[in-house]
Amino acid sequence: MSSHDDRRDVFTSISPSEFFYRNRQMAGFGNPVQAVYSTVRELVENSLDACDDAGVEPVVTVSIRQETGDNIVISCSDNGSGIPSEQVACSFGQVFYGSKYESRQRRGTFGLGVTMAVLYGQITTDMPVEIHTKTAENAGHLFRVFIDVEHNRPIVDTVSPLDRSENGTTVTLHIRGDLRRARERIIDYLRLSTIGTPHARFNLHLEGVGPLTLGPWFSQAPTRTTVMRPHPRSADPELLRRLIARQPPSTRIQNFLVESFQQIGERTAKRLLKFISMNASRPIGDLSREEILRLSNALRTFDGIGRPSAASLSPIGAEPMLAAVRALFRVDAAVYSCSPIAEWQGNPFLLEGVAAVGPDFSEMDPPAVQRFANRVPLLYDNSDCILTRAVREVKWSRYGLNTGPVQLFIHLCSTRVPYKATGKQSIASVPEIELASVKLYKDLGRFLGESLRGHERAARVTKRMRDFVREFRLVVKFGSELAETEPPDIDELVRRLFEVPIDEERDDTD
Amino acid sequence: MSSHDDRRDVFTSISPSEFFYRNRQMAGFGNPVQAVYSTVRELVENSLDACDDAGVEPVVTVSIRQETGDNIVISCSDNGSGIPSEQVACSFGQVFYGSKYESRQRRGTFGLGVTMAVLYGQITTDMPVEIHTKTAENAGHLFRVFIDVEHNRPIVDTVSPLDRSENGTTVTLHIRGDLRRARERIIDYLRLSTIGTPHARFNLHLEGVGPLTLGPWFSQAPTRTTVMRPHPRSADPELLRRLIARQPPSTRIQNFLVESFQQIGERTAKRLLKFISMNASRPIGDLSREEILRLSNALRTFDGIGRPSAASLSPIGAEPMLAAVRALFRVDAAVYSCSPIAEWQGNPFLLEGVAAVGPDFSEMDPPAVQRFANRVPLLYDNSDCILTRAVREVKWSRYGLNTGPVQLFIHLCSTRVPYKATGKQSIASVPEIELASVKLYKDLGRFLGESLRGHERAARVTKRMRDFVREFRLVVKFGSELAETEPPDIDELVRRLFEVPIDEERDDTD
Repeated sequence: MSSHDDRRDVFTSISPSEFFYRNRQMAGFGNPVQAVYSTVRELVENSLDACDDAGVEPVVTVSIRQETGDNIVISCSDNGSGIPSEQVACSFGQVFYGSKYESRQRRGTFGLGVTMAVLYGQITTDMPVEIHTKTAENAGHLFRVFIDVEHNRPIVDTVSPLDRSENGTTVTLHIRGDLRRARERIIDYLRLSTIGTPHARFNLHLEGVGPLTLGPWFSQAPTRTTVMRPHPRSADPELLRRLIARQPPSTRIQNFLVESFQQIGERTAKRLLKFISMNASRPIGDLSREEILRLSNALRTFDGIGRPSAASLSPIGAEPMLAAVRALFRVDAAVYSCSPIAEWQGNPFLLEGVAAVGPDFSEMDPPAVQRFANRVPLLYDNSDCILTRAVREVKWSRYGLNTGPVQLFIHLCSTRVPYKATGKQSIASVPEIELASVKLYKDLGRFLGESLRGHERAARVTKRMRDFVREFRLVVKFGSELAETEPPDIDELVRRLFEVPIDEERDDTD
Repeated sequence: MSSHDDRRDVFTSISPSEFFYRNRQMAGFGNPVQAVYSTVRELVENSLDACDDAGVEPVVTVSIRQETGDNIVISCSDNGSGIPSEQVACSFGQVFYGSKYESRQRRGTFGLGVTMAVLYGQITTDMPVEIHTKTAENAGHLFRVFIDVEHNRPIVDTVSPLDRSENGTTVTLHIRGDLRRARERIIDYLRLSTIGTPHARFNLHLEGVGPLTLGPWFSQAPTRTTVMRPHPRSADPELLRRLIARQPPSTRIQNFLVESFQQIGERTAKRLLKFISMNASRPIGDLSREEILRLSNALRTFDGIGRPSAASLSPIGAEPMLAAVRALFRVDAAVYSCSPIAEWQGNPFLLEGVAAVGPDFSEMDPPAVQRFANRVPLLYDNSDCILTRAVREVKWSRYGLNTGPVQLFIHLCSTRVPYKATGKQSIASVPEIELASVKLYKDLGRFLGESLRGHERAARVTKRMRDFVREFRLVVKFGSELAETEPPDIDELVRRLFEVPIDEERDDTD
C-alpha cells in the first residue's frame, strides 16, 4: 500500500543545490535557532567583503523583524562595492558560484553561504530573496530571485530600477526560525565581529534590543590583499596539469616554473630540475604523465623553496586587535603575538592572538578561547576544532595561567581556511596549523605570565610607596607640630620621590 | 612580479568535484592519517551496502600494502550485488552521483565518499581507481577510472573482461597517506563495524597485523528495508511542488495526498483539507503558489498524522547488538534499549543502544559513548556530536553509574542522517534527535543500574547460600559421625534448598 520494494537500485545525479537542500545542517541550517544566526552571519560576511573591495570604512546595518508566527525578516545593508547587475542572479541563486575562489584571504570562500540562506528562506516561507544594489558602473536596481533547486540555477522573479544614494547592497530575506533563542548569538556574533574587523561600524535593529551600535574601535583600514600565484607546495599533479595547459606547449620547463609559481626564481628552478635530472629547456608540452608526477613530487618536497608571500593575507594586527578587545571587555592586562607565515598544502596561513586577563572573563583550566577565521568569529562547534584542541596541549600552570580569569582570542588567516564543514564553524585537523597554534599559545602564555608578574611587582612597589608616603606625611605633620608651624605642601616632593624608589626597587629585584 | 592586483572580482562557477578537491578536509581527507582511514571506511561501507542489496551474509576483505615512500595500496573485496557495467564510471568518477538518494536507511548517502577517495588517490599518486565487478546480469569486468575534476565527470582509462567466480566487487586504490598512524584506527573501525553489522565477516590483511578475521557474531541477517513515500512532515513547498508535478494536473487534492504521502488515508486527508478550508476535490493543477504554501504548512503541523513507518529502517536489534558487544569486550553486565520511531523534518529515525559494564571499559563521568549511524561506527569528532552532548545531559549518579567501568553504545538509524559534514563523523544539533537520545540514555542508565543492583543482590544471596550449605554439610557430617553412619548424599537436597531462600530473600527486599 504505502511502500514499494524495488530490488534494483536507481542511479541518479543530483545538483549541488539539491545536495544542500537535503543536507542543510551541513551549511549551518540544521535547526531554527542556527538558521537565524547563519543567515545573519552569511549576510554580514558578504557585506564586509564588499566593503573591503570598495576600500571604504565598513558600515553594516542588520535589521531583524519578527512577523506572524515564526516568520522572520532579516535585512542587511552595506556601503560596499555593490554587485554587478549581471552577477546578482547567480550569486544569490546558484550554489558554488561566486567571486571568492581566488587565492587571497576573504571571509566568504565557498560561493555557498548566502545562496544557502536564500534556499532556506525559500523552502520555509516560499519567499524570494530581495537584493537592492548599486555599483560604480550600474544604477540602483531591485532584484527578486528564487532558486531552481533541482537544476541549481537562479529564477529571476522581478528586476526593477530603484535608486540608491550610494554604492552598496541591501539584502532582505524571509525565513522561518527561532529568533528568541538566536538573539544572544546574534549580538555575540556582532560584538565579536568588531574584533575581527575593528575598523567597521555595525548597527543592529532588533526588537527588544533597541538600536545597538558597535565600533569602529580603530580608524585605520588594513592594507588590501593581493591574489598570488600558487606556492610550489600546492602543486599536485592536477594543479600542475592545469597550469601547463594555460601556457603554450613550447614553453620551457624552467620558464614555466618561474612564471607559474611564487617563490621560484631562475636559480631555484634550475636547482630543482637538476635535482630530479630533468632538462630545464624541455618544452612543457613534451612531459609525460609520469614526468609531471615526478615534477609535482619535487615541487612539494624540494627544500630550497621559501615560505609563501604574506601579500594575500590580512591579519588584524596588534594595535587594532588589542584596541577591540579592550573596547569590548574590562581588561587588566593583555598581550598580542603573531606566528610567522607558513603554509598547509601550499596555502599560506598565519595565526595571531591576544591573551587577556580581566573581570569579564571566567576562570578555566585551560583558559577559554574565542576563535576567528579570516576575521570571522566562530561561535559553534568549539570542542573538536583544532584551535581549541591546541589549547589543551599547552601546560598553562607553567605560566601561572591555570587560575585567574584568562581569555584567549585566536585568529587564523589563510587563503584557504580548512573548515570541517560548509557551515564554517570548526577548523579541521591540519598538522601544520596545529603546530603553529600550540606555538602561538605558548608565546601568549609566556608573554601574559611575564606581564602579570610585572604587574604584581608594580603593585607591590606601589603599596610600599603608599605606606612610605603615609609615614612621611605623619613625620612632616608631627615635625611641624613640634615646630609649631603650618604643615608644608609636600605633594610635589612626594611626586618626585615616587619616581625614584620604583627604579631603585627594580634595580634590587631584576 | 609575483602578483597581480585585480580590483575587479572574477565571478565563476565550480563543479562539485572542484569544490571537494579544494576542500578535501570536509570529506575526511584533511591529513595523511585520516585519508587512509576514510578510504578504508568508504570502501567498506559500499561493500556492506552491496551485500545488503544482494541479501547475502557479507564477507568483506580489506588488504592494505605499503609501497615505496608513503604510497599505499588499499583494496576492498565483497560478495555483494556487484555494480552494473554502465554505472561503474559515474559511481566512482562523479561527485553527487549514486544509487542511495532514496528514502531508506543505507550506510552511504551522499554519492560522494568513494569518489572522494578516488579523487584523493588521483591527486596524490596520479593513479586511477581499479574496479573489478560482476553482477547477476553482467560478466566480470575490470575498469580503470580517473576523474575530470574541473567538469565532474569520469574518464574511463581502460575496460577489459576479467572473469570472477562470484558476484561482487573488488576496488583497488592507490593513495598517499600515513599508514603507520592510521593502523589502530582501521582495526578499531573494523572491530566496531561488527557491532554495526553483526552478521558480517571482516578479513583484514595488513602487514604487522597478520590476517585478522572478525565476526560474524550473529547468524541472522536483518530484514530488508523498503523505500517509503515521504512523510507529510517533510512537505516543504519545494517537495510539494515536485510531488504535484509528478501527477496529472486534474488529480484531486484529496487523492493526491493519499497517493503521495505515507500516514495519510482518506479520512485524514479530508480532515486536514477541511482544517484549512480547502475543497478536497479541487484539481492540483489549479493550486496557486499561496495555496501550496498553505497546504505545506498544514502538512507540517496538522496533529492528526501518525508516526512514520519503520519499514525503511534497519536497527541492529537487541540480540545481535548484545552478542557483538559481548564478542568484542569482556562484559559483566549489559542492557539494551530502543526508542520509539520518530521523525526529524519528516525523516524517520530511531535510536537503540547498549550500556555495558566490564573490565575492558574505563571509568568516566559521564560514561564514554561509542556512536554508530546507520550501522557505521563514528570514530572522529566525538565532542561536538549531539549523541555525545546528550550523554552530558543525564545525571549518571542517579543510576549509580558515575563510577565504574561503564561504556555506552548508541546507534542512530534514519533514512537521512543529519551529519555535520560530508566526512560523516558527527551528528548535527537536531532537537528531535537530541531529545530522543537523552531519553534513551536515561532508560539505559536505569536498566543498567537495576541490573547491577540485581547482580549485587544475587551475589549477596549466593554468598549466604554458600555459607549455609557449608554449615549444613558440617551438621550432616557431624550427625552421621555421631550416628556412626556414612554421610548421606545431600547434593539433591542442597539444589532444592538453594532455590527457596532466593525467592524468600526477594520477597523480603522487594
